[in-house]
Amino acid sequence: MTTPQHYGPPPGVPPSTVSQLGEDDELEDNVALAHLISEVKDYQLTHGNLLKLVRFEEPTRVPTTGVNISCQPTKFPTHFFDQAMALQQPMQELYLRALSDTTWLYSVLGPQIESEPDGVMAKLWNIHMRCEAAGPVQEFSCGLFRSDYMLNETASSGSLGDAQKEVTLKQVEMNTFSCAGACHGEIVGNMHQALLRRRLAEDGIDPTPQSVLPTNTNTSDIVNCLAMAHRTYESQFGLVSAHITMDDRRTAPQRRCVLMIVQPYNFNVADERPIEYGLWKDVNVPCYRCEWQDIPKHAFLGGDRALFYRPLSSKKEYEVSVVYYRAGYDLREYADDIEGSDIRYMLETSRAIKCPDILGHLVGFKSVQRALAEAGVVERFSTGLDGAQVAAVKDTFMSMYALGDMATDEGKEVALDHSFMKDYVLKPNLEGGGNNIFSTDIPAFLEHIPLNDWHRYNYQRLITPPAETTGILLTTNEIYQGPVVSELGILGLAMWRRDHAGKEDVKIFENKAIGFTFKTKPTDVDEMSVVKGYGCFDTPMLV
Amino acid sequence: MTTPQHYGPPPGVPPSTVSQLGEDDELEDNVALAHLISEVKDYQLTHGNLLKLVRFEEPTRVPTTGVNISCQPTKFPTHFFDQAMALQQPMQELYLRALSDTTWLYSVLGPQIESEPDGVMAKLWNIHMRCEAAGPVQEFSCGLFRSDYMLNETASSGSLGDAQKEVTLKQVEMNTFSCAGACHGEIVGNMHQALLRRRLAEDGIDPTPQSVLPTNTNTSDIVNCLAMAHRTYESQFGLVSAHITMDDRRTAPQRRCVLMIVQPYNFNVADERPIEYGLWKDVNVPCYRCEWQDIPKHAFLGGDRALFYRPLSSKKEYEVSVVYYRAGYDLREYADDIEGSDIRYMLETSRAIKCPDILGHLVGFKSVQRALAEAGVVERFSTGLDGAQVAAVKDTFMSMYALGDMATDEGKEVALDHSFMKDYVLKPNLEGGGNNIFSTDIPAFLEHIPLNDWHRYNYQRLITPPAETTGILLTTNEIYQGPVVSELGILGLAMWRRDHAGKEDVKIFENKAIGFTFKTKPTDVDEMSVVKGYGCFDTPMLV
Repeated sequence: MTTPQHYGPPPGVPPSTVSQLGEDDELEDNVALAHLISEVKDYQLTHGNLLKLVRFEEPTRVPTTGVNISCQPTKFPTHFFDQAMALQQPMQELYLRALSDTTWLYSVLGPQIESEPDGVMAKLWNIHMRCEAAGPVQEFSCGLFRSDYMLNETASSGSLGDAQKEVTLKQVEMNTFSCAGACHGEIVGNMHQALLRRRLAEDGIDPTPQSVLPTNTNTSDIVNCLAMAHRTYESQFGLVSAHITMDDRRTAPQRRCVLMIVQPYNFNVADERPIEYGLWKDVNVPCYRCEWQDIPKHAFLGGDRALFYRPLSSKKEYEVSVVYYRAGYDLREYADDIEGSDIRYMLETSRAIKCPDILGHLVGFKSVQRALAEAGVVERFSTGLDGAQVAAVKDTFMSMYALGDMATDEGKEVALDHSFMKDYVLKPNLEGGGNNIFSTDIPAFLEHIPLNDWHRYNYQRLITPPAETTGILLTTNEIYQGPVVSELGILGLAMWRRDHAGKEDVKIFENKAIGFTFKTKPTDVDEMSVVKGYGCFDTPMLV
Repeated sequence: MTTPQHYGPPPGVPPSTVSQLGEDDELEDNVALAHLISEVKDYQLTHGNLLKLVRFEEPTRVPTTGVNISCQPTKFPTHFFDQAMALQQPMQELYLRALSDTTWLYSVLGPQIESEPDGVMAKLWNIHMRCEAAGPVQEFSCGLFRSDYMLNETASSGSLGDAQKEVTLKQVEMNTFSCAGACHGEIVGNMHQALLRRRLAEDGIDPTPQSVLPTNTNTSDIVNCLAMAHRTYESQFGLVSAHITMDDRRTAPQRRCVLMIVQPYNFNVADERPIEYGLWKDVNVPCYRCEWQDIPKHAFLGGDRALFYRPLSSKKEYEVSVVYYRAGYDLREYADDIEGSDIRYMLETSRAIKCPDILGHLVGFKSVQRALAEAGVVERFSTGLDGAQVAAVKDTFMSMYALGDMATDEGKEVALDHSFMKDYVLKPNLEGGGNNIFSTDIPAFLEHIPLNDWHRYNYQRLITPPAETTGILLTTNEIYQGPVVSELGILGLAMWRRDHAGKEDVKIFENKAIGFTFKTKPTDVDEMSVVKGYGCFDTPMLV
């Protein structure tokens, strides 16, 4: 199938009716398609691959909808998958060295911090400065990072001078804070494994585990990372006996917990809860969720800046070993009415290990990605890398520029020129993805942005994926069959210690790739966001 | 808390709002309750403890609601739990002997078969007779049974002559066909384990697995039972090589599958799909679902009456090793327009192993339960039981009578007398539970039933559970806090061979308890049905 087909849901169509999917002569295909979709929907429902419709939540029930999902794995070249996995360690090394060099970091972030004192970046930097002034009591930090890549196709001259196409792996962005999608990615991976097992059996092939679909164990990997941080805390501050009898529980030391900081009215609990459940069940580490705005009610600093948390269900406090952020990145979370900056400051200045600390958050802003791509910068932070790794990292960077540098009359003329901007994507200088403006939409958008706000944006050369692969995507709004493009996110963990006393340096204890997410969208849609209805969780079929 | 409180969902209340749950002075309790309910809802959502709202299904999404659930385990005496588990083997022995004695079985079912030739029972018996005439080609059968019990409290004279209360375990009914609830029961068991682990940790007790909540592994137990039947079939008809290369797949023998027969528009897929997934993934046995009315399109009998099934997703047939019924019990499934009797006949007359066969279905009708309680009947079928087992089985029977025996002028006068019927429950002579009429509702109900239809009912002495325990129940419609009563269902598997050639006898190969379901309802509600909105899946807290 090469013509993309977007099938909307006709209102009032009874379940199992497939005739809306096409003409009669496509009936057999459509019956098979309807069957596949029914299999996918049931798998999602029985494995919690769901989003809450929080606006419609009632005391007794929560309506749900399936997460956007690709009904079948999408082809992706094995060597690019392996290349992305191998890049995670040097890529994280680079970011860890960058975040530890606060002088350099401020040289990158400073202009925006100074010109936007009420922005998230400035608020975070101020919290960082308050923490430094208070004096750090915890040198260890841990991080769960995700580096996103797409394939980029360019014309290049072959050795014989004829025009050839060259495909390379290019980094879309580096996510360092509150990375989502790991749990959904694992469920979708397991679903594609299950569907493949069935298809192979139908083809008469014994369904042994197939290496064409890489195994995804994101959830337990994240659980193990947080457990490692928890044990590190215990090794720093003394082990609490795991065996407390009924008799000595009143005098026993506090138990410790991982505190997962979450957003209220969260529709995506299914991407967080499995981590909490795994900590309790699989590694015997207590874990509690606390909504951002409730932290002042339930958490406080004790002696030695130990962070304590009292669960709603308990009369006894836990000492927090690890703060795991799944909130704290929206400007509104730092609003004065909820004293958001004080919330973050209390967490950051405590002796709990943060996942990640505030510098790990700040290094995820787009302007850092841009600055790292400048000449000589990777080399500056390449202490732990060999020459091949430096080259490999740099090879994945797309050109990226500060829009602020164009905030002149001359520059404006270029920026508003369609023929120039058609090759770029405009990215707000925030942490995390989304909110991008693409290609020929950019000039019209910039018309409404005052020149003195241009420093809030970077523009990155557009990645142009090969248009060879088709897929079947199931979103809340439609069933799509047609050309697709995919984005591979490599998940990694790291644990490091900043040397606060002496010169700014970092010692890295753990640094490795742990898993992946894979998202696919219709080729004719720009944005990959899953929660905004375009991208779909998927699994790479390695070819 | 002793006053039952039913909290309905006020329309339009935003999530996390708890003030609707009571007065201000109950706020702390209510915050804790709202928190508990939020934990329960998220656990259900992330573990597929859900029902599909099939009427609102659209091509791209399926709305869901949580299964009715008890928010905390409910106390149940350990010795009664152990007693019920120990009863499963003799109870199944009794039913297996009874279903094999078709002369006796017809003596019990015959009156209704003859007076209601269009009823399900008559249709099933006719299919059985057609199968006997065709000559059986499969002597093995397997079964997944569930025996339901409640505690019954009666006044009895103590040894010193003072009035005392006596509590005993009484059988509500025996389910032999298409038993549901196993998968939901396991999820709820795991949820209560998770909540208990947390509570114990908060009390400073090391969260080792607690024996107070019995472990529930229903799903894998059922998977293993069906896999055992599948292997039995392979041992009868030759093993299909599990290792087929790409080269010989065209000439390789057919693969075999378990065929799960299901109802269309099924809202309860979450209680079936895990069994299918487990067969594929955990024991490498292909399993397909086929909706009842689609069987003629996808299944057919081949040579030697082997049953073949062609999955929608395949061009190649599977030979069916085991027919696992999760449909085929509703009268409308035997309607002429879908040729339901021919569907069932094809399945039954095939050489696939049925779970269970049609006699295993027929023995589940209420009139069999009544007849087994008559004097001397347990002894008649006690070949494999010792005296203590015979006594133990009989001790759990509540008195049960045929309403047809009261279909006289004299009898009618008694039946319509409130003071007589207040101690009984009227049960339609069907297989499975539900549709019961309770106590003082019976006379008004019987006024509208012609005397010659009275044979369709039995009346059983009401079980009166001790009213000591309170609970917190979350149903689609309300949050209930107050007195509750529970029903314990023991799941068992059996595998047996009828000797068709000689005298009617049965050889039992496997017969054991495998797991349990536990349901709890408000004391002031009669019916325990979960799907009708009263009963809630629960876990016994053994005391």
